[in-house]
Amino acid sequence: MNKVNLAEKFSLVKDYWSPAIAGELNGQQVKLVKFKGPFTWHHHENEDELFYVVKGSFIMEFRERNVQVNEGEFIIVPHGVEHRPNAPEEVWVMLFEPASTLNTGNQQNEFTKKELDII
Amino acid sequence: MNKVNLAEKFSLVKDYWSPAIAGELNGQQVKLVKFKGPFTWHHHENEDELFYVVKGSFIMEFRERNVQVNEGEFIIVPHGVEHRPNAPEEVWVMLFEPASTLNTGNQQNEFTKKELDII
Repeated sequence: MNKVNLAEKFSLVKDYWSPAIAGELNGQQVKLVKFKGPFTWHHHENEDELFYVVKGSFIMEFRERNVQVNEGEFIIVPHGVEHRPNAPEEVWVMLFEPASTLNTGNQQNEFTKKELDII
Repeated sequence: MNKVNLAEKFSLVKDYWSPAIAGELNGQQVKLVKFKGPFTWHHHENEDELFYVVKGSFIMEFRERNVQVNEGEFIIVPHGVEHRPNAPEEVWVMLFEPASTLNTGNQQNEFTKKELDII
């Protein structure tokens, strides 16, 4: 039951697109990720994902439209929906999703990363 | 799949200790609450709760110790653990918890509130 300071924890995240677990509750995990550049198109079969922007902004690309998500905003991507985060500049994102979630969903490629342990 | 701007949504929250649902995913809800003053001591039988401070700061009181949670920080309170949020000044908090969670947990009193619908 210690508090978690996001800025402090983000300073431990060195690589882009490499999620670090910052907390767990009710079978869900809080993951901290730094985005930069375009990610890979994917969807998650079973898991909905919440993306909250802590610093900066990014574009959530869907097949039909794009949504710019800015600091202090979140977007929820339901399971089954194809998406690609794209960050022209570095952005710090807090994810909230089931512990079972793989970062690249139905894809396995160079972006696929196991999470860092709780930081 | 619209984004949610926290400042905008918080402007719709008028009463203290009255949670407003800002999002749902995986059986969990994102709730926005303004705290001011001391809440009621309680615990949740089954639900863990995450408290993320969007603006201001508050004290999470436990029976054995207190933790001050500041802007940009979160704390997770596991189920079964007695706690009382206490906010000397107004604070804006984003909660993440199962949809089943009652705000006063095992207590029913003047603080007990049904959530506002999705805002």
